[in-house]
Amino acid sequence: MTCSPSLEWLSREYHDLNGNHIEVLETPPTALEFARSVKISRPIVIKTSAREWSNDFLISEMGSRLISVAATPNGRADAVTRGPDGKLYFVEPAVEKITMESLLANLSAEAMPDLSDAGTYYLQSQNGNVYSTRFFEGQDDPSEFEALRLYIPSEVKWCTEALDRAPDAVNLWIGDGSSVSSIHSDPYENIYTVVRGQKHFLLLPPTDGYCLHERFYPHATYARKPHDSELIVQPSSKDTPPVRWASLLQGRLPPEAHPIHVTLSENETLYIPVGWYHQVEQAGITIAINWWYDTEMRGMNWVMLSYLRAIKEVPNTDEHEENEGMDKIRRNPLS
Amino acid sequence: MTCSPSLEWLSREYHDLNGNHIEVLETPPTALEFARSVKISRPIVIKTSAREWSNDFLISEMGSRLISVAATPNGRADAVTRGPDGKLYFVEPAVEKITMESLLANLSAEAMPDLSDAGTYYLQSQNGNVYSTRFFEGQDDPSEFEALRLYIPSEVKWCTEALDRAPDAVNLWIGDGSSVSSIHSDPYENIYTVVRGQKHFLLLPPTDGYCLHERFYPHATYARKPHDSELIVQPSSKDTPPVRWASLLQGRLPPEAHPIHVTLSENETLYIPVGWYHQVEQAGITIAINWWYDTEMRGMNWVMLSYLRAIKEVPNTDEHEENEGMDKIRRNPLS
Repeated sequence: MTCSPSLEWLSREYHDLNGNHIEVLETPPTALEFARSVKISRPIVIKTSAREWSNDFLISEMGSRLISVAATPNGRADAVTRGPDGKLYFVEPAVEKITMESLLANLSAEAMPDLSDAGTYYLQSQNGNVYSTRFFEGQDDPSEFEALRLYIPSEVKWCTEALDRAPDAVNLWIGDGSSVSSIHSDPYENIYTVVRGQKHFLLLPPTDGYCLHERFYPHATYARKPHDSELIVQPSSKDTPPVRWASLLQGRLPPEAHPIHVTLSENETLYIPVGWYHQVEQAGITIAINWWYDTEMRGMNWVMLSYLRAIKEVPNTDEHEENEGMDKIRRNPLS
Repeated sequence: MTCSPSLEWLSREYHDLNGNHIEVLETPPTALEFARSVKISRPIVIKTSAREWSNDFLISEMGSRLISVAATPNGRADAVTRGPDGKLYFVEPAVEKITMESLLANLSAEAMPDLSDAGTYYLQSQNGNVYSTRFFEGQDDPSEFEALRLYIPSEVKWCTEALDRAPDAVNLWIGDGSSVSSIHSDPYENIYTVVRGQKHFLLLPPTDGYCLHERFYPHATYARKPHDSELIVQPSSKDTPPVRWASLLQGRLPPEAHPIHVTLSENETLYIPVGWYHQVEQAGITIAINWWYDTEMRGMNWVMLSYLRAIKEVPNTDEHEENEGMDKIRRNPLS
């Protein structure tokens, strides 16, 4: 593959200056300490503490309330997948309403495939499922997880104070080893706390984005076939914009990338700075809470992240398939 | 002129997102507030307070002590100037030792050319003339301005705390309207306080560097001719590395640039973030103190500033003169 030489230079230079080091804080930082870290914009692991998130606790608090969970045939929600027409799509999960008890039973069945015919469930609604923007704007903000708000603070104080803003969304994540996210970056500062189990993060700095073979993929969602409930890829209408996404064969990173691997255990928090690529795996039932904060648009960081995206020409998948042998990535398209 | 399209895009995008706004703080920030500002890395004006810096005060404190001042025939120290051989050089000033009283008499003579035959003096030694790195490392740090240390704090507390480091150098600047700096940027975070008079700053964000027609110029210094003491350009030895410097005809900015003009009055402090281009003028005797802090090398900002410099091919002046009609700037040289 051919990469734009200047972006390759930048990626190497970034790595030479920063290495693979991840700071680990034994106690939460002060707002000032975290403000300094946000400027450096590198991941940090922070030891925190939280209550025990057992199945009994969750089932007893949530009762028969229905919650929206992602269903996929293979644990790969929000990923590039081949559709029934043989084309590649960016596929979002089906969303189904089940009880917490059903979700946890499905997740416990991870090692017992006969119990998990329903597909793979993952509570990952990511829409501010615990607190959404409405909450922080002082509006009515109904949540399926109302009963858990008592145990999930609406903000991370040292982060709120360092960034001088309230969160934009707070989410609860409950999944197991059958779910894997595909590598991506978010336009948010992310405070991510594991409260049960372990998560394995693969992290890449924004400067490595140039070599992730991003393409534009048409959008699809999983839907159940009426007669046998099988989950199939259902292409969205032509009006749905295509999605720019990394194209890594079997998740294999190109040799130019500079991955950092972090395992986050119970009561550990990871700061994932805006624009950092990440891919997450887990083993067994794993529960996490994350706080997304809008990023600072002023200054250099955001415009540089935009530049790193804009300077890459990203083909759509049709072009990609025509040119697959060449896998060509042309240089700077801006004019 | 032809600019690299991607850098032009970046410069426009930066300006679109940030505009020309400069924040003005009526009181000094807290360390946390300033840490947030350093992340945004845009200039800020801060109202401060200081004692009166009169001629009488300076002369009485400094007495007959000799101080190192810059001497030039035209007030343009550290600027591109044509040498006796007709070639362009980056010319540093002659350094001469005079008393504070002589310096102030020379500056007062600004409007009386017959009194200023000695050339233009400017106290601008910029080597940590009040406190150097040695001071902050706990070593002996003799200073020509020992007597003024009582009135010049060695650090700016809110900045030291925000950056989590001591300054690298603290300098006193005393000049008048006959001195003008040429546009440049420093690899430091700069806290710059005017304690007497007014300074007029022209500021450009680092993203505007691409259009400043930077060239490599051979190095020279001003030296006095023995018989009549005239200051002439004396080329340095061939071993002295050439200096990369902007080439703006009569200081005129290219239309692509996004200048911000700030007038800094007595008891006002300007934060000049690392990598920001600046050019400074003044009228009448003007006294300033600046604190340079080493910049944070970790994270994205420094590597991006390096990238912005590295991605530009910068010709040396010989090439420039050969190609003057074309004034060509080739795109990304990295390979």
